Amino acid sequence: MFYAHRMASMITPSEPAIDLNADLGEGFGRWTLTDDEALISVVTSANVACGFHAGDPSIMRRVCELAAARGVRIGAQVSYRDLAGFGRRSMDVPAGELADEVAYQIGALEVFARAAGSRVSYVKPHGALYNRTVHDGDQAAAVVAGVVTAGGALPVLGLPGSLLLDAAAAAGLPPVPEAFADRAYTPAGTLVPRTEPGAVVHDPDAVVARAVRMAAEGTVTAADGSPVPVAARSLCLHGDTPGAADLARRVRAALGAAGVRVEAFA
Amino acid sequence: MFYAHRMASMITPSEPAIDLNADLGEGFGRWTLTDDEALISVVTSANVACGFHAGDPSIMRRVCELAAARGVRIGAQVSYRDLAGFGRRSMDVPAGELADEVAYQIGALEVFARAAGSRVSYVKPHGALYNRTVHDGDQAAAVVAGVVTAGGALPVLGLPGSLLLDAAAAAGLPPVPEAFADRAYTPAGTLVPRTEPGAVVHDPDAVVARAVRMAAEGTVTAADGSPVPVAARSLCLHGDTPGAADLARRVRAALGAAGVRVEAFA
Amino acid sequence: MFYAHRMASMITPSEPAIDLNADLGEGFGRWTLTDDEALISVVTSANVACGFHAGDPSIMRRVCELAAARGVRIGAQVSYRDLAGFGRRSMDVPAGELADEVAYQIGALEVFARAAGSRVSYVKPHGALYNRTVHDGDQAAAVVAGVVTAGGALPVLGLPGSLLLDAAAAAGLPPVPEAFADRAYTPAGTLVPRTEPGAVVHDPDAVVARAVRMAAEGTVTAADGSPVPVAARSLCLHGDTPGAADLARRVRAALGAAGVRVEAFA
Amino acid sequence: MFYAHRMASMITPSEPAIDLNADLGEGFGRWTLTDDEALISVVTSANVACGFHAGDPSIMRRVCELAAARGVRIGAQVSYRDLAGFGRRSMDVPAGELADEVAYQIGALEVFARAAGSRVSYVKPHGALYNRTVHDGDQAAAVVAGVVTAGGALPVLGLPGSLLLDAAAAAGLPPVPEAFADRAYTPAGTLVPRTEPGAVVHDPDAVVARAVRMAAEGTVTAADGSPVPVAARSLCLHGDTPGAADLARRVRAALGAAGVRVEAFA
Repeated sequence: MFYAHRMASMITPSEPAIDLNADLGEGFGRWTLTDDEALISVVTSANVACGFHAGDPSIMRRVCELAAARGVRIGAQVSYRDLAGFGRRSMDVPAGELADEVAYQIGALEVFARAAGSRVSYVKPHGALYNRTVHDGDQAAAVVAGVVTAGGALPVLGLPGSLLLDAAAAAGLPPVPEAFADRAYTPAGTLVPRTEPGAVVHDPDAVVARAVRMAAEGTVTAADGSPVPVAARSLCLHGDTPGAADLARRVRAALGAAGVRVEAFA
Repeated sequence: MFYAHRMASMITPSEPAIDLNADLGEGFGRWTLTDDEALISVVTSANVACGFHAGDPSIMRRVCELAAARGVRIGAQVSYRDLAGFGRRSMDVPAGELADEVAYQIGALEVFARAAGSRVSYVKPHGALYNRTVHDGDQAAAVVAGVVTAGGALPVLGLPGSLLLDAAAAAGLPPVPEAFADRAYTPAGTLVPRTEPGAVVHDPDAVVARAVRMAAEGTVTAADGSPVPVAARSLCLHGDTPGAADLARRVRAALGAAGVRVEAFA
Repeated sequence: MFYAHRMASMITPSEPAIDLNADLGEGFGRWTLTDDEALISVVTSANVACGFHAGDPSIMRRVCELAAARGVRIGAQVSYRDLAGFGRRSMDVPAGELADEVAYQIGALEVFARAAGSRVSYVKPHGALYNRTVHDGDQAAAVVAGVVTAGGALPVLGLPGSLLLDAAAAAGLPPVPEAFADRAYTPAGTLVPRTEPGAVVHDPDAVVARAVRMAAEGTVTAADGSPVPVAARSLCLHGDTPGAADLARRVRAALGAAGVRVEAFA
Repeated sequence: MFYAHRMASMITPSEPAIDLNADLGEGFGRWTLTDDEALISVVTSANVACGFHAGDPSIMRRVCELAAARGVRIGAQVSYRDLAGFGRRSMDVPAGELADEVAYQIGALEVFARAAGSRVSYVKPHGALYNRTVHDGDQAAAVVAGVVTAGGALPVLGLPGSLLLDAAAAAGLPPVPEAFADRAYTPAGTLVPRTEPGAVVHDPDAVVARAVRMAAEGTVTAADGSPVPVAARSLCLHGDTPGAADLARRVRAALGAAGVRVEAFA
């Protein structure tokens, strides 16, 4: 098997590799949500909540310390200002304000990343902001403007084909497309909306198999059974469901067994 | 004139100089409080609210842009998390949380200061946090710990003799003592509490005269009429009262007329 | 004059009467916005902010006391939970949550209205919630559901033709249509969007004349010069602009001079 | 049976009876804390969070519906405005503001209690406000003033000997003293501060035994082994620890087995 793998490497110019990202630090004050310690040992990129939908300064510091200690990349998971709705409610925030709110969150997180000996090295919108910037060009541009304000030309993590990644590329920020092993895909390669039946894949074995196929072959089986290409440089693992850490570990192990290197995107 | 200036320097070992600081950007969303544009043309140091007692990301950006354009130094005016109380209510925040909250605020402001071509170059606690860290060693140390976390060994602005300035000095952060031209002083050199009659000097002429004497002679007339030394490197001008900008301009003009250089502390 | 007035009453089945409403208590903590004392002496209905876009408990108490002392009707000005955006940003709040948030706000205000010897006697959505429930049936129904939860079958103030007023009527809550003397109308009788030029009438004389015509004749001159019927039982006066209280007084005086009774809707 | 009951009444002047109260609805938005469904089936009084330290409108509605369906009394668990600190940080809120904040919370909860067919029938301060009003007469009076503003002369639940209960009694609000089966007591009958070792009783068997003794005999064994009288009309059960619901059920069962009626205070 090792030999076959070497042979494959000789044929394909680059061995398959994938980044694993998850949302971390999504508690607030007295409340907790994700098992940060367990997840941090599995992922290669930590999307750290910055206080607008979840996350408080002390949680941010702790997650940054954990991530830095494990060599996990720190990303700013920026959100609408909406603690009550956990950032899951789309908001008509004017572009200028949204850009400033994004920059504010990145700056706040940067303090804790640096204090832990690391840096904020990418940005990923959360929840409703993530979904809206798939198709809302104004808000996509606003998020990118906020990242530019924060400086450092940080990569932006998002959905392949989203206006967010287009806006990032146009501004000189590296776009990083991601895929979801636990979400159903349409034959067109887009996500089946959560409002439709079967949108979420609940069977852990299926999730693991899909993750491996996405990473090793760049393909996913769509809801109609057809194979669909998925150009993902990162896989998003959900951390706020029961058994999330166990499933994440299984995904990582299966990727390794399939010869896929798990590593943060360049 | 240049020659006269040189001569003066030769006589007095150092020409008197003073920094003028004021709280700016203390609106929030739809609400405004200070006349930022008017004050920024008078002060040499702008204490910018960071979102915890006042200030939102867009206000922070605008004030940083104004300050950078005028060559005014930008400081982080850090506060308890208390929008409803404008940071004026003392809170028993545990030291670790308080330090993290301070660091968070500095980091958020730093983004806008840098984007405007400047930097956060000092820290001043606001309201109840300012008053409490005069005598509460734990919270004073927590504020200083937050400044250290934020990095850069920033100077800390505070009351002469406060535990805050002691803690700053102990941590290697330059302490910057300030005085208040519109506050009455006790013969011991401390502020007359606001709860006592005569605590605030309302007569503009008196405020101007006191400012000049503080800066030129390092002295203030105490409530009992006795002269008291005031070792201040900065004068705090209040910006949230009617006529604040006018009074600030008069103070600055009078300082200049008295031969006091008005410039940011080193 | 009294005689002429009686004569007019004999001809028209009902003497023209109009309610005047304005947003009050829109400060928060340290911040103020509206001149509540001045406006309360002009209006007959006070839309009191309930803490979600503006208004804190102490402001709510004071405005209720003022309103009760002047015999002004107290209404709950309910909003999205959005202090940072002053409730002006449309939010995709799920219907159930929105209904609960509306009920919460009404209940909180009711305490202060009762303590002042009055009652909450109507509900009016604020800002983005007002605009959205014109055409969003789900949110309109949610607001009405919240009013029903709060009990008392309170009247709902809104735009004529809005889904909000339809939903109110369907639920047995009296719909109260209102008009805006300082907003331009289309020939179809709808408001010219604020994004278009001329949407707001700035000339005080024109505002006064329009108010009188709306109240006395039920007509407004549309943007194209044509007369358009406006079936309004209340006129909304803006309170957060310079000169707002003066203009409100002029409107009220002109209405009285034109023989229009100014009184709260039944 | 009625006769037997009369006989028993003739022997013991009054059959021992106790109320069981617990904090419920202490989640916020996406976050949960207490197992409300399990606890509601054990307690006779539900201290419902009102949105200032925890609790959002939808949680409040659900807990009120659960409580009303089970015949459990609904109380307003009022707090400082401090979501980030879960109301556990003492705050120097001026008395007037504090009173208004208390009234606001009670009013908001009342809407959901009524909609569920019940009423808010008592008030209990939460966390730091509970602790502070034991000895801070100004804040104790402010809480009571808020309860008075809300109307209905609601009973106030608190620590025996606290200034809060004194202030309640002075204002004509029934004071309801409570005890804690899982807290150590000093020989003077006060709680051992949480900062001291042994302040919390962790052994479930000991908690159960103490609860029974408190309710049946009005006595608790102090930290030095001496028996101390505890005049409690209610026992507070903690709901936010692992196994909290199980322990609560054990306490209730043991009380029943010991002949103690478990019922809401009159």
